[in-house]
Amino acid sequence: MKDKVYKIIELTGTSTSSIENAVNSALKRAGKTIQNLSWFEVVETRGSIEKNQVQHWQVTIKVGFAVK
Amino acid sequence: MKDKVYKIIELTGTSTSSIENAVNSALKRAGKTIQNLSWFEVVETRGSIEKNQVQHWQVTIKVGFAVK
Amino acid sequence: MKDKVYKIIELTGTSTSSIENAVNSALKRAGKTIQNLSWFEVVETRGSIEKNQVQHWQVTIKVGFAVK
Amino acid sequence: MKDKVYKIIELTGTSTSSIENAVNSALKRAGKTIQNLSWFEVVETRGSIEKNQVQHWQVTIKVGFAVK
Amino acid sequence: MKDKVYKIIELTGTSTSSIENAVNSALKRAGKTIQNLSWFEVVETRGSIEKNQVQHWQVTIKVGFAVK
Amino acid sequence: MKDKVYKIIELTGTSTSSIENAVNSALKRAGKTIQNLSWFEVVETRGSIEKNQVQHWQVTIKVGFAVK
Amino acid sequence: MKDKVYKIIELTGTSTSSIENAVNSALKRAGKTIQNLSWFEVVETRGSIEKNQVQHWQVTIKVGFAVK
Amino acid sequence: MKDKVYKIIELTGTSTSSIENAVNSALKRAGKTIQNLSWFEVVETRGSIEKNQVQHWQVTIKVGFAVK
Amino acid sequence: MKDKVYKIIELTGTSTSSIENAVNSALKRAGKTIQNLSWFEVVETRGSIEKNQVQHWQVTIKVGFAVK
Amino acid sequence: MKDKVYKIIELTGTSTSSIENAVNSALKRAGKTIQNLSWFEVVETRGSIEKNQVQHWQVTIKVGFAVK
Amino acid sequence: MKDKVYKIIELTGTSTSSIENAVNSALKRAGKTIQNLSWFEVVETRGSIEKNQVQHWQVTIKVGFAVK
Amino acid sequence: MKDKVYKIIELTGTSTSSIENAVNSALKRAGKTIQNLSWFEVVETRGSIEKNQVQHWQVTIKVGFAVK
Repeated sequence: MKDKVYKIIELTGTSTSSIENAVNSALKRAGKTIQNLSWFEVVETRGSIEKNQVQHWQVTIKVGFAVK
Repeated sequence: MKDKVYKIIELTGTSTSSIENAVNSALKRAGKTIQNLSWFEVVETRGSIEKNQVQHWQVTIKVGFAVK
Repeated sequence: MKDKVYKIIELTGTSTSSIENAVNSALKRAGKTIQNLSWFEVVETRGSIEKNQVQHWQVTIKVGFAVK
Repeated sequence: MKDKVYKIIELTGTSTSSIENAVNSALKRAGKTIQNLSWFEVVETRGSIEKNQVQHWQVTIKVGFAVK
Repeated sequence: MKDKVYKIIELTGTSTSSIENAVNSALKRAGKTIQNLSWFEVVETRGSIEKNQVQHWQVTIKVGFAVK
Repeated sequence: MKDKVYKIIELTGTSTSSIENAVNSALKRAGKTIQNLSWFEVVETRGSIEKNQVQHWQVTIKVGFAVK
Repeated sequence: MKDKVYKIIELTGTSTSSIENAVNSALKRAGKTIQNLSWFEVVETRGSIEKNQVQHWQVTIKVGFAVK
Repeated sequence: MKDKVYKIIELTGTSTSSIENAVNSALKRAGKTIQNLSWFEVVETRGSIEKNQVQHWQVTIKVGFAVK
Repeated sequence: MKDKVYKIIELTGTSTSSIENAVNSALKRAGKTIQNLSWFEVVETRGSIEKNQVQHWQVTIKVGFAVK
Repeated sequence: MKDKVYKIIELTGTSTSSIENAVNSALKRAGKTIQNLSWFEVVETRGSIEKNQVQHWQVTIKVGFAVK
Repeated sequence: MKDKVYKIIELTGTSTSSIENAVNSALKRAGKTIQNLSWFEVVETRGSIEKNQVQHWQVTIKVGFAVK
Repeated sequence: MKDKVYKIIELTGTSTSSIENAVNSALKRAGKTIQNLSWFEVVETRGSIEKNQVQHWQVTIKVGFAVK
């Protein structure tokens, strides 16, 4: 078996409700063009504010997937 | 139009239920004395423990707002 | 009163549902063998992906407790 | 002579032309309410993009000044 | 409205004259193949030296843009 | 009981004798205008030199206190 | 001569034998679709364990190449 | 001679008087259950505040010792 | 199936010949008392010098394993 | 051909006008005693303030050059 | 007046008694060959252990001085 | 016995074959002008690429030695 190689891309997902949804939003979008997404790591959690509460959670992740 | 200047302050919000609520708790309190809060960034997520579960989520954020 | 000393250990909790549950999962397990867990800090948030959404949240924390 | 104490605040200056102007913009604004600004350190250099070039340089600095 | 997703890529722009030009050089090139570049962040500033002065400024940036 | 919110400020204390005194110098000054200072963290230890020994210890700390 | 622009991508190469082979494995794969790979930097060295020894070295690198 | 292996643990020592005493307090306690402590590294210096001065120095160290 | 919990410990392996051997040396020793070691991450690579060449490679790793 | 070895030194250049001039100021001075300066990397950008504007830009760089 | 240039060197001072003495020990030695040492910054605090207490404090500092 | 003082210098060694050889290459060269090199720490591992494989490993190390 050959040694596998993975590519890592960086995405920012957004959500009005939670950090978890922001991550899943990014993964769902990435899955439209990339097969076999394998793992992710959160690298930054930011957000915009409206009327003194979080308007959009903006979660930046690195996502890894095997290169065929 | 003049170049805008923003100030950034650091706050720790707490919540017994979630990271998201801890952030909103800090923003709500900051909004009492500061207008036009604009964005935030999570810089640390800690917590106190009671009976082997999280008692208080303590989330430290940097919050930016335009200086008039 | 003597000066207290604390030990800090590193754990990764996992959960299919949320970051908060992953942390509590790690604390619950640690509490089986360690008394008086006192505080924690999140040091890494990663996860595995299945069908373009988060399968397991993997949250690594440092946990501190007083050494008797 | 007593030991001096300094306070450090964090500001983001913006400029359409250069990093240097963004820093000076922040210092000029801070000088309206704070006397004797003493030193600064650049902590982040970001910007917004319009038509594939930098629209606003956004330079975040820490600024120190002696507390009377 | 759906939650937006952004992709972040990393580029090194170069310039014989200034840091600002090196950034704009990278943005101009990226704009040839990517629409709606939105924001950037400087992550590294290096350079080559010739005859004891800067020959090329090499500025590495992360650039974000909305994924359609 | 409501969730508490804390503010964190950054100060540099100085002392000719020790790191500990530099920290206490900053805390003493902060206590003149802020009640209930709660915790601190050392973020930088620098100093000026005179005749090949430390002239002033300059210790930068973050100080947290509950916002009423 | 125009100022060059480089793109930087992130890859994880794997190898059962050494860190060096894991890096070369990633470069070999990248070279199938990208011409003129120019430099790399190791950003993380991890691995999986089987029977108390390293099973796969997993070396994450950033790779730079000139954009034509 | 076989290649030595060391284990590294993390401890927080506390002291009302100094950073040095906080470190020694942690080492003294560790020495009750671990033989041949070899080296340490300071990773964090924090403290609690009472009446505008340091109440307890809380110094977190990593401590290494040879595994027999 | 219950959510798994992992513990992470820190070890320094040494070797006169290579970084890879230093890591395997640490894993072999850890395997004597811990079952099911799962993954590791290199956190520091140092060494001692004798006659202007590396005498011992000292590689510090974090090692994770499932807690039963 | 033998494997080259490079030495890296750290310098702070200053300028009243720009970051670029501060870097070139340091390189010019270094070139008086060191031949074949090859590359540099900016590691810190600070400055002194006079009348609410930057008085001196203080840019710290690492500079590499081949050891003959 | 010309723009000043500073050189920064890295030293580890040691002391059996305190962090402060370890720093002064390094400065005293550096002053034998370098004139006008100007400032320093602590970058690492480590030590060796003997009989469960600190044997030598090993404090690494960066020291800056004007190049004539 | 007097408290020892160490100096730390930064070098980049190169090798066409391995990380280990790149480090030893730097140490061998340093040993020509400096006696009693004592320890090193790897701070960066980079390299140049030729025909989709590593051409030169470029390993930057900090090297410490006692100042007489």
